[in-house]
Amino acid sequence: MRIIRDIEEMAEVAKRYRRKGKSIGLVPTMGALHQGHLSLVRRARRENVFVVVSIFVNPAQFGPKEDLRSYPKPFKNDLALCRKEGVDIIFHPEAKQIFPEGYKTYIEVQELSDLLCAKSRPGHFKGVATIVTKLFNIVQPDIAYFGQKDAQQGVIIKKMVKDLNIPVKIKIMPIVRGKDGLAMSSRNTYLSAQGKNDALVLYQSLNLAKDLIKKGERDPHKIINSMRGLIQNNKAARIEYIAIVDSDNLKPIERIKNHCLIALAVQIGKTRLIDNYLIT
Amino acid sequence: MRIIRDIEEMAEVAKRYRRKGKSIGLVPTMGALHQGHLSLVRRARRENVFVVVSIFVNPAQFGPKEDLRSYPKPFKNDLALCRKEGVDIIFHPEAKQIFPEGYKTYIEVQELSDLLCAKSRPGHFKGVATIVTKLFNIVQPDIAYFGQKDAQQGVIIKKMVKDLNIPVKIKIMPIVRGKDGLAMSSRNTYLSAQGKNDALVLYQSLNLAKDLIKKGERDPHKIINSMRGLIQNNKAARIEYIAIVDSDNLKPIERIKNHCLIALAVQIGKTRLIDNYLIT
Repeated sequence: MRIIRDIEEMAEVAKRYRRKGKSIGLVPTMGALHQGHLSLVRRARRENVFVVVSIFVNPAQFGPKEDLRSYPKPFKNDLALCRKEGVDIIFHPEAKQIFPEGYKTYIEVQELSDLLCAKSRPGHFKGVATIVTKLFNIVQPDIAYFGQKDAQQGVIIKKMVKDLNIPVKIKIMPIVRGKDGLAMSSRNTYLSAQGKNDALVLYQSLNLAKDLIKKGERDPHKIINSMRGLIQNNKAARIEYIAIVDSDNLKPIERIKNHCLIALAVQIGKTRLIDNYLIT
Repeated sequence: MRIIRDIEEMAEVAKRYRRKGKSIGLVPTMGALHQGHLSLVRRARRENVFVVVSIFVNPAQFGPKEDLRSYPKPFKNDLALCRKEGVDIIFHPEAKQIFPEGYKTYIEVQELSDLLCAKSRPGHFKGVATIVTKLFNIVQPDIAYFGQKDAQQGVIIKKMVKDLNIPVKIKIMPIVRGKDGLAMSSRNTYLSAQGKNDALVLYQSLNLAKDLIKKGERDPHKIINSMRGLIQNNKAARIEYIAIVDSDNLKPIERIKNHCLIALAVQIGKTRLIDNYLIT
């Protein structure tokens, strides 16, 4: 496994592989790898000759009051995990090379970037779209893998790739959960044992929604109200949003149907968590 | 010479050529080809195995009150010119395939897109940056050729390519002028015989600036005032801007130096013309 920090070097290596017609799979991450990331890596490993995992804590997707500085960076552990999965290259660029002084170019996916998570994280998806495009241009992957946990991110990246005609296939892989149901997230490390317990309320509320739908409920407002009620019973939880939206355009729907997404963001203590359930 | 309208088909053909390691040169145009465009095509022909000329009147770079509808579209003549120059492919996509309903993704090169021409054409360079990125993603050129006449466009595209790590080399070719000095432009066809004569005032004012600098003048304000005086003598001419700026960041400079750009936009009757002189 090779670790590349330099952008030019990464681009050169990728170009050489592409010339040989070898398929490249890219798993873009911010490190602090968990089983969710590893499920992407394994899929990439199965489907490509060459697997690149990028580890880059992207400053452009953090707000000024967010956790850029405290974001976990267990780099050695990440390397060990990737080595075990047979990753070929870790691309681990420096922020000052990715966003040098005088950097000016940003990509905006309109409307989709102003909904759901964007309301509390303005500019977040512009930062995501921009870094993902940069990584695509540098690594030139045939396929790139993202997790369904970041549902809005997945929708925005798929839309951006389609709109800009970027020659890459996007695969969104299912949420990986702990035995208790908690969705894997690098930010779970911020939670105390009690916090982890409180955080189960996100999954529980999604299960409640699932049950209601199974029983025939089709009114999103009623489902959201039930979810809200359940979460509000937990004093540690502060709801940021609960939404039931079309899974392509992220707009609220008036009746449960296929291709809808139930998504929520909840603060558990100081930790902001997201989770979702995709009805297909 | 092959004419391709379909995006997928263009991308497939380009991919096949790239796989063979053949270099692709792209000349992005809005058609209405003149000797300025042809100078780019000839250079591309010399430097690449495979030459693609795109002809697409990009709606995203026209303002609501601009000349999108009346923009000249002498497609057959353009084809004849390209055939004569040994172009391999004309990529001539339809607007509704390039910007289908629900299109949402735009690229912005901050600051650079708000200066000079942008003041009268808000959103213009966002439209340019977006279409150029799309063309790069579809055609996957090794080298792309642009004209120095659109100086600000060239600066913005070079910055975007650098910022987004787009794997393409940008070449900006010198302005081509008529015998009388008028810079080649597709919009010159809007001018009457008298208008063409009036339009010479742009070139004359740049020559005046050149002379003043040759004689030792180093104060941009004095040079601009002299240019303004000359142009204002022509009743048909309405100055939009005259600027002397750093040729990398397009910011006004306080003293003439190398790498500065003297640029101007002037309306001759209803026709907006631009011209510039690059001090290297």
